[in-house]
Amino acid sequence: MALTGVTRPGHIQLRVLDIEAAVRFYRDVLGLTETGRDASGRVYLKAWDERDHHSVILRQTDRAGMDFFGFKVLNEVTLNQLESDLKAYGVATERLPAGELLETGERVRFQIPTGHQIELFATKKMVGNGLAPVNPKAWSPASDRGIAPVRLDHALLYGPDVGGVLKLFTEVLGFTLTEYVTLPDSDEKGALWLSCSNKAHDIAFVVHPEPAKLHHVSFLLDSWDKVLRAADIMSVNDIRVDIGPTRHGITRGGTIYAWDPSGNRFETFMGGTAPYPDWPAIHWTWEGLGEGGGLDVAHRKLHETFLTVVT
Amino acid sequence: MALTGVTRPGHIQLRVLDIEAAVRFYRDVLGLTETGRDASGRVYLKAWDERDHHSVILRQTDRAGMDFFGFKVLNEVTLNQLESDLKAYGVATERLPAGELLETGERVRFQIPTGHQIELFATKKMVGNGLAPVNPKAWSPASDRGIAPVRLDHALLYGPDVGGVLKLFTEVLGFTLTEYVTLPDSDEKGALWLSCSNKAHDIAFVVHPEPAKLHHVSFLLDSWDKVLRAADIMSVNDIRVDIGPTRHGITRGGTIYAWDPSGNRFETFMGGTAPYPDWPAIHWTWEGLGEGGGLDVAHRKLHETFLTVVT
Amino acid sequence: MALTGVTRPGHIQLRVLDIEAAVRFYRDVLGLTETGRDASGRVYLKAWDERDHHSVILRQTDRAGMDFFGFKVLNEVTLNQLESDLKAYGVATERLPAGELLETGERVRFQIPTGHQIELFATKKMVGNGLAPVNPKAWSPASDRGIAPVRLDHALLYGPDVGGVLKLFTEVLGFTLTEYVTLPDSDEKGALWLSCSNKAHDIAFVVHPEPAKLHHVSFLLDSWDKVLRAADIMSVNDIRVDIGPTRHGITRGGTIYAWDPSGNRFETFMGGTAPYPDWPAIHWTWEGLGEGGGLDVAHRKLHETFLTVVT
Amino acid sequence: MALTGVTRPGHIQLRVLDIEAAVRFYRDVLGLTETGRDASGRVYLKAWDERDHHSVILRQTDRAGMDFFGFKVLNEVTLNQLESDLKAYGVATERLPAGELLETGERVRFQIPTGHQIELFATKKMVGNGLAPVNPKAWSPASDRGIAPVRLDHALLYGPDVGGVLKLFTEVLGFTLTEYVTLPDSDEKGALWLSCSNKAHDIAFVVHPEPAKLHHVSFLLDSWDKVLRAADIMSVNDIRVDIGPTRHGITRGGTIYAWDPSGNRFETFMGGTAPYPDWPAIHWTWEGLGEGGGLDVAHRKLHETFLTVVT
Repeated sequence: MALTGVTRPGHIQLRVLDIEAAVRFYRDVLGLTETGRDASGRVYLKAWDERDHHSVILRQTDRAGMDFFGFKVLNEVTLNQLESDLKAYGVATERLPAGELLETGERVRFQIPTGHQIELFATKKMVGNGLAPVNPKAWSPASDRGIAPVRLDHALLYGPDVGGVLKLFTEVLGFTLTEYVTLPDSDEKGALWLSCSNKAHDIAFVVHPEPAKLHHVSFLLDSWDKVLRAADIMSVNDIRVDIGPTRHGITRGGTIYAWDPSGNRFETFMGGTAPYPDWPAIHWTWEGLGEGGGLDVAHRKLHETFLTVVT
Repeated sequence: MALTGVTRPGHIQLRVLDIEAAVRFYRDVLGLTETGRDASGRVYLKAWDERDHHSVILRQTDRAGMDFFGFKVLNEVTLNQLESDLKAYGVATERLPAGELLETGERVRFQIPTGHQIELFATKKMVGNGLAPVNPKAWSPASDRGIAPVRLDHALLYGPDVGGVLKLFTEVLGFTLTEYVTLPDSDEKGALWLSCSNKAHDIAFVVHPEPAKLHHVSFLLDSWDKVLRAADIMSVNDIRVDIGPTRHGITRGGTIYAWDPSGNRFETFMGGTAPYPDWPAIHWTWEGLGEGGGLDVAHRKLHETFLTVVT
Repeated sequence: MALTGVTRPGHIQLRVLDIEAAVRFYRDVLGLTETGRDASGRVYLKAWDERDHHSVILRQTDRAGMDFFGFKVLNEVTLNQLESDLKAYGVATERLPAGELLETGERVRFQIPTGHQIELFATKKMVGNGLAPVNPKAWSPASDRGIAPVRLDHALLYGPDVGGVLKLFTEVLGFTLTEYVTLPDSDEKGALWLSCSNKAHDIAFVVHPEPAKLHHVSFLLDSWDKVLRAADIMSVNDIRVDIGPTRHGITRGGTIYAWDPSGNRFETFMGGTAPYPDWPAIHWTWEGLGEGGGLDVAHRKLHETFLTVVT
Repeated sequence: MALTGVTRPGHIQLRVLDIEAAVRFYRDVLGLTETGRDASGRVYLKAWDERDHHSVILRQTDRAGMDFFGFKVLNEVTLNQLESDLKAYGVATERLPAGELLETGERVRFQIPTGHQIELFATKKMVGNGLAPVNPKAWSPASDRGIAPVRLDHALLYGPDVGGVLKLFTEVLGFTLTEYVTLPDSDEKGALWLSCSNKAHDIAFVVHPEPAKLHHVSFLLDSWDKVLRAADIMSVNDIRVDIGPTRHGITRGGTIYAWDPSGNRFETFMGGTAPYPDWPAIHWTWEGLGEGGGLDVAHRKLHETFLTVVT
């Protein structure tokens, strides 16, 4: 297969401080569809145009952040192979049973050098996007409910040892480094954008002293007009915006960063490059991240919150 | 690697009736960059944001159409493997020497059941997109020169035995069937959209009595606003438009079909779905292609030219 | 006052063949808001961002078309003055009593040389756009309900003696000629675009043997993205499209022409020029209307329906 | 005439610190067209789609800011009438001779209660927009040169006694108050948006202790996509951005505020409402200007620079 191995972000489990406030935000403001709740009280949601049962799981607890981020792999054979590759590489893995997440098969979980819990899985019930399987329409009212992203797109995670993460994701999991930032006066990579497809990123990392931190979870919109509409809807709903609307120089995406009611940062973005594995990774210096527009093309500065506010 | 095997459309060689008129169109109106001419008089061009030396080759002759369509594979090992897989499958292959196309390595060429010449290659000189390799800007004057597509995106080819093509592309070349049309009162697939990535299509086919025909070569734009700008620029330059601006139901892309000065149809389009290999292929009936908006969401009809005008 | 006299299109009364089918279209598909029904069964609607009580009135009868088109003038003094000016010019006028249309003051009605009934009025209840009068939000769910035009924008009317109409609208009613088309091999104006503001047109006319015909009533959208969304929603709702999405050369608006369930043509469009009274009117030849892209920039042809299908 | 009296912003004379740096910015980055230079060294420019000879005049001196802002009135009769009305109202007026500005007729200049010099004029040479007067194309390369605004749209001026300005503009000059902000814990209007057309504003004022200050001069773009492109081009050209891209709640325009090389703030914006003289003015409280999104819908705060940085 041309697209094989790890294929895409499959789900993120977010910790929220008030589950009903979180549901109101993710369902009614962001516009995800609630697809289920489990015995432990977790709430499952999906973006309207995703096919799988869920991509966002909300868990109420007293500390915001991310429990784990899962990737869908091509099939169960691939899952077994990657599990074995991880072990051979020296990464301890754990199997979670089918059904531990609703409508989801067995998952292989492991901790990466930034301290995050990452999962691989091959099976999740396909529930479709609500359009007919034969002669589907090109538009659905669901595409206008709330901010209405098309899909969960990626996450940006903060933690130590991003070098170890780079090695693991590229050598074992088959990701490509698409862009990176070197630390001030250094050749050391302090931020990484990694792709398992021809998206600009399926996951990204920034070096940070505390492990296992979430910078943001990102959702894809269709157009720059939809980014403005997202800003309008955030404003009507008192969602606190961090940065944007603007363009990132890194990936060239048109973006808004904002915070959910628990303080988890999320992104609604559009566009960006579509790199391939053989393209050289784009190098950003630390100044390039800030003054060079890597973070914010319009304002060309390193917003203070970018490095300091994580959950 | 997650994206492996055949990675992307690499080039198309188009037959044109008047090379200088063709260059004026592809370079000055469409806005491709001329990157070279070879001893046989062929002209090489690339879209501004492509990294490889060229994606379009123009050859003057007395009959319009397509000579061949080439895919870039991950590396030379992959090229050898796919060549061997093709042979094992019973497809005769030919090696073209490095340099036969400017700045391009060896190519493996073969004929597919629709009569088209398809090539695989692993090596082409990377010339970049004109932006700096370190801290690149997010915008370039090149992105406004002419219609200014981002990349060669795909082609739609017409010929007999698309069933044989489906088998070859999915079983040997690792493509995924993303959408298809069944013939009237039949389960037989008469049109195929095939992807080697998470693009909606990297190549597509429609059944047709004559072999080796080109329906259109397609170029990607950033936005629906750019599709309108493309229409404006076509109008100023007396480019004959076939269909659009409109949306295809199939792939959901926003599109214009038009003809180059030799009568080869090209498409400038934006957006569309981003399917994955495990998504079920979307089924369109013959009525769905026409009245169902598969071809033209706005007009919901099977434009007569769609089935009859090819080169 | 800088904007004085006749200020804007105020309402159109459309004849429809099935009032409930018409309401379903204008309210649920086009996305107007129903604001009332009167004793005679007429249904009143407004676009979401209009302030006045209504802009579209639907009346069921056995023949589609337009009963009358009304302009709002600055105030009652202006109404009296224009009534007197019309009489002085030789136009017979009729006063319709306040309340004959819901929430509307007295109207001055007269027939123009194309046979259409035109009205002036100064008073209509302001019901607002649903946003708060103090610190309004920038977005409302109403702006996403159906195609959701911002306002009734203009109408294009067909009838004989457009020369007489030009004289009446510019000499008595204070309109400016912004663009016009001359008939084949003639200096005679066969089509007129007229503005009472700095819009590209508030009303337009095309010469036609039959009097009092409606070519289309037009509704303004915010963006070209919304025009595509309009096409998507029309497609989902089986609305028959005539022309577009495309751009008119005349006015430069981005447009779709389509038909309501009774066969009345309507337009959903965006953008266009903003001319001033001192700008020279733009001259289009008959060829310019067709091959010159006056009607359709992308296709540069005079669609057959443009001259033949009216109600 | 329906649009009569004062019809539109005609020109602004800006003081710049380095005339050649200013020309490079206004011509090459903003994308205005240079149309002349006069004996005193002033440089004249116009937006591509404007018809008049110029709308921006640059004058080199040692202090940035605005010398004067001029409105085009309908004709010389109107000019005389408004001059006489101003005098009757008690405003001292001065006649500047024809030709004092290139290609411009006599101007009536007066000082308003905020200390600004305002001018009225009826005559300026029409040079057109470069498109043919007969069957013009819908697109011009000029529309892509630099940021490429369509027109000078308005200015926001700071000074004392905005109440006096409101009275003068509405009672003598025929403007309509479209939106206003009241001062904290007060009914006093501290900011005004005034229109002489159905634009959201042709001029605006904010109360400020120092007289005759320029907050920004504003240029209109076609679309929100063009606002992002403006941000991209500003970034490439090291233009310092103040606020945006974002939407103003006031007027609903999509905007960027940035500074020219002399420190004069300019705006590139799109969209917004199209109010009429009979619409009630929208009331914003001081909190509405900030937290209510009046200035910045996305960030809902009163940026510190908004009240403090003027030239």
